[in-house]
Amino acid sequence: MKNISAWEEKAKLLRKWSLVSTTAAASGHPTSCLSAADITAVLFDKYFTYDVSNPLNIYNDRFVLSKGHAAPLLYALFGMCNAYDLNELKTLRQFNSRFEGHPVPRYEYAEAATGSLGQGLSVGAGLALTAKRENLPFTTYVLCGDGELAEGQVWEAANFASYHRLNNLIVILDINRLAQSGETMFGHHMNEYEQRFRAFNFRVFTIDGHNYEQIDQALEQAHSHAGQQPVAIIARTEKGKGVSFIENKDGWHGKALKEEELKKALDELGPINDNARFELRKPASSVDDSFLSPMNTTVKLDFDNNKSYATREVFGEALAEIIQHVPGMYVLDADVKNSTFTQNALKVTPERFIECFIAEQNMVSVAAGLSRIGKIPVVATFGAFFMRAADQIRMARISETNIKFVGSHVGVSIGEDGPSQMALEDIAFFGALPDMVVLQPCEGVSTAALVSEMVQHKGLVYMRTLRPKTTILYKPGEAFPIGGSKILRQSPDDVLTIAATGITVYEALQAADLLKQENINIRVVDCYSVSPVDKQTLLDCLNSTHIKCIVSVEDHFAHGGLGDFIAAAVSAEGNYVEKMAVTKISQSGKQDELLKDAGIDAASIAAKVKELVQSHEEVHTHA
Amino acid sequence: MKNISAWEEKAKLLRKWSLVSTTAAASGHPTSCLSAADITAVLFDKYFTYDVSNPLNIYNDRFVLSKGHAAPLLYALFGMCNAYDLNELKTLRQFNSRFEGHPVPRYEYAEAATGSLGQGLSVGAGLALTAKRENLPFTTYVLCGDGELAEGQVWEAANFASYHRLNNLIVILDINRLAQSGETMFGHHMNEYEQRFRAFNFRVFTIDGHNYEQIDQALEQAHSHAGQQPVAIIARTEKGKGVSFIENKDGWHGKALKEEELKKALDELGPINDNARFELRKPASSVDDSFLSPMNTTVKLDFDNNKSYATREVFGEALAEIIQHVPGMYVLDADVKNSTFTQNALKVTPERFIECFIAEQNMVSVAAGLSRIGKIPVVATFGAFFMRAADQIRMARISETNIKFVGSHVGVSIGEDGPSQMALEDIAFFGALPDMVVLQPCEGVSTAALVSEMVQHKGLVYMRTLRPKTTILYKPGEAFPIGGSKILRQSPDDVLTIAATGITVYEALQAADLLKQENINIRVVDCYSVSPVDKQTLLDCLNSTHIKCIVSVEDHFAHGGLGDFIAAAVSAEGNYVEKMAVTKISQSGKQDELLKDAGIDAASIAAKVKELVQSHEEVHTHA
Repeated sequence: MKNISAWEEKAKLLRKWSLVSTTAAASGHPTSCLSAADITAVLFDKYFTYDVSNPLNIYNDRFVLSKGHAAPLLYALFGMCNAYDLNELKTLRQFNSRFEGHPVPRYEYAEAATGSLGQGLSVGAGLALTAKRENLPFTTYVLCGDGELAEGQVWEAANFASYHRLNNLIVILDINRLAQSGETMFGHHMNEYEQRFRAFNFRVFTIDGHNYEQIDQALEQAHSHAGQQPVAIIARTEKGKGVSFIENKDGWHGKALKEEELKKALDELGPINDNARFELRKPASSVDDSFLSPMNTTVKLDFDNNKSYATREVFGEALAEIIQHVPGMYVLDADVKNSTFTQNALKVTPERFIECFIAEQNMVSVAAGLSRIGKIPVVATFGAFFMRAADQIRMARISETNIKFVGSHVGVSIGEDGPSQMALEDIAFFGALPDMVVLQPCEGVSTAALVSEMVQHKGLVYMRTLRPKTTILYKPGEAFPIGGSKILRQSPDDVLTIAATGITVYEALQAADLLKQENINIRVVDCYSVSPVDKQTLLDCLNSTHIKCIVSVEDHFAHGGLGDFIAAAVSAEGNYVEKMAVTKISQSGKQDELLKDAGIDAASIAAKVKELVQSHEEVHTHA
Repeated sequence: MKNISAWEEKAKLLRKWSLVSTTAAASGHPTSCLSAADITAVLFDKYFTYDVSNPLNIYNDRFVLSKGHAAPLLYALFGMCNAYDLNELKTLRQFNSRFEGHPVPRYEYAEAATGSLGQGLSVGAGLALTAKRENLPFTTYVLCGDGELAEGQVWEAANFASYHRLNNLIVILDINRLAQSGETMFGHHMNEYEQRFRAFNFRVFTIDGHNYEQIDQALEQAHSHAGQQPVAIIARTEKGKGVSFIENKDGWHGKALKEEELKKALDELGPINDNARFELRKPASSVDDSFLSPMNTTVKLDFDNNKSYATREVFGEALAEIIQHVPGMYVLDADVKNSTFTQNALKVTPERFIECFIAEQNMVSVAAGLSRIGKIPVVATFGAFFMRAADQIRMARISETNIKFVGSHVGVSIGEDGPSQMALEDIAFFGALPDMVVLQPCEGVSTAALVSEMVQHKGLVYMRTLRPKTTILYKPGEAFPIGGSKILRQSPDDVLTIAATGITVYEALQAADLLKQENINIRVVDCYSVSPVDKQTLLDCLNSTHIKCIVSVEDHFAHGGLGDFIAAAVSAEGNYVEKMAVTKISQSGKQDELLKDAGIDAASIAAKVKELVQSHEEVHTHA
């Protein structure tokens, strides 16, 4: 009984701050906070083990707020753990406040940026899987809303959690019936949620989410259950619970109370103990992650200059070598490990290989969970299929994760499989995200070196790998820093510069040979670092060729590719970039047929150079 | 008994052509075809109603091959319906053959391009929902693989299908146990599939997928069942069924037989009747879609020049007006209809409003299904959340659909909700897809006009709408053609041109006013058509300003936005584009604070102009 009145008191204070902070901000989602106040009060008061002085302690329990719009509740929870003064919540949603509209990394207690719905269970599964694999004793809690359960990613995560026997994962479902624009698909039909989570092999407890005894009992049983199943606590709640005029009422999503409404609401809540606090148990140990300390990422691969290698294969070999020396690395696969060649890593470090099956969204958010506690996740699939997880990648960027994305089978050069399998918009998407490093080695030596650079780099990286085999261009030991490039052809008499990347490097070299026969010299640069692109080298090229023009050639759609990075980098009066890229949907066919069809083959490049030379001459003759 | 031997004969011929065509191509997925040969033989022989001379007849049954890699089976099926000579299948995967590695629209019997897995059930649900809404008698069949059931989109589609009571939808699950790189999550544990589809409220039949009697019985019952549930026929099958050395064997995914293996396989199949054919029942009626005939998309909205309007609101009003006169239009929502203002359409045409709840992937693929049979789907959500469906949008482009995407809440100008809700990479992604029209009106008059243009345009369109209200800039009746722009400020003495779009138009106008006070004139262009961008007007601007420079300003990340479209359009010796855009992750705050923080406000624009003028003068003084 004593507990219950304490929980009531604390839940009341959570409600107060959820209401007060949103009214101060004049926006936000108070009703979505109120439905979960009782559950989280019990969780934090009795079960949650955490050291607020060290959020990155890997022995801490984890609380993932999947329904990110309930951010004020999260802020109130940790405020009541004495992480900061609760009065600071009055800065909610203000410029430069750590209390943003939805949680972001500047709020250090957020396990991930949330606010795009349906991603939290995957993040939690990533945290829980790490605990299982590394024998860490923490429990991961995920709070989901009911609206977001319509997102397919939730069911990818549910499959993943039960397949990997994550009995250290507890998802709490806040079934408050009302979504943004009306009732959810299932309203308060609790059986619809029960039957789904049971079918996905969860241990299920259904409770009244405002009954403290039921909440406590469910959490107790969730911890003590003996099986290997993850747990779902399905809580029937009322949106806006505790304030009569907003409770279980449509039209109150994402609406702050006006001052006079707030007053009325606080009156209804009655006397409140403003000093109520959670006294969290601290974990027994305290270890911060240390995986970002100096790493040995040396790769010693030998290449036979008379042979060809697919960069995807070399990636797999380099990965398998590096992962053995870097204990923080994990590899995630979506059932294409024999195409991306992450299978090499599976062979040497199966304990750090995570099979995600064909569920790319969950894979990326699981990686975000790993990254949160200091791991370096390498996530690989076909480049085209990263688009399936574009929103999760966007959120991984906002979460400031350290994920390495490797996309194979890029461009039309994959050949017969056809356009559905070709990554042709991947650079546009990945490249748009601020500070994203985009790499595309064209052959073996540079691939091995860049896998090493990629792992060393702190922050997000996207690497494109090729399906076809290519010949070796570089010598063992050459350096390939991020942001660099390689000049492969030059003379004192170059008319202009071709900047290529990946498969088109070979077309550019062949074009140079063709043009040479007609006494036209061109410069050829391998832009293995697509972003950041090698601005200085390209500017130097512009300054030393007859025409101040760079022709970019790439196996990617015309918009948003290498060409646009170069145009932005060299933009200045007099400079000039001409883009050659794919401008239509491709088809099945042989590599050479498709490069020609797309107009990015050697002959097309040679023709373009001649056209530019001619028009330059015409302009300067007329001038 | 008679039937069974006929089915056996036909299944054998399907097997033969699946094997022969892939061996001829030296690539492809024969084993994935063989597991489904028996089921589809019975389906096509006894149940499928279709007029091969008119694939777009809206009375045809629909067969969606979700497991697109089994394309040779699809090609053999319609070949055996006398749609073409089976011998043409020997061109499989050749350049310019209609028989691509995965189905695409050049193969007219494909209901959608497939090959990115887990999308077919949504496409089928879109077809089935149209039939329900418009009282069309056809049945939609979807053939799914088991590997792809790990994709969350399948469960979004399953929820959608049962919620909308699509009892005219039959999904056949080809549970052949083996995925690309190993066993699926559940192997042959049929109960795992049964319990999931039951929990999602499907009527479930589990069968041996190689037992003709069971197949027939299941299909029979699937058609005659009285309820409102969609049906799942869960078929236990063997990958590579019928050829001993590839049957149920790992390592045979996506591998064609060598010539000698093919010979051995055909020997095993035994005598084959090459003349076996399906005699399809034709539907009773034949009506092609006619919705793309001339449409009345006039919008008559009045604006008060003293008031401000959010373009998202004007979009909603224009949409509600147009949809009443265009019977082929449908509107799809992901539970944000009160933010995107598609709720206006719900009010006037509820029969053509489709609530998809928070499941953007399914929403987009459902729209692809609608588009296939001549509908014009308008799909709206927050611009940021279209990234959740990026892969489905990519496939909708390959499918050559006619979907109109409308993304609200773009850019940092949304304010307090923070970065998770801001669309800042949407132009990069949508804009990369060939022929995608990208529009961003900045105020009411142009929004209304462009909604009309968007619906009239045949092909994909993406329109960005704004959260904040903006003042009216244009007069009633002004034209806003796709590919156009509006010059808002000009003088005979402009130093350079600012090209803005959306919210930054107002910042550019304000910058012009600020600069005017210092006697610096600039030209300001509203690029409401981001792609195609108004090349001619921009070239004219370059030719008539002091500095041959266009400064682009946009509330979007720097890479892949308007600036890159302009740079590509005006690229020529001497021209020059300077991009101003968002270069970091934004935060919560007021609109003005965030525009300033991102460096795309009026003051930043004015400063940039002065900097460019100064550096131009320096260059030309030194020269």
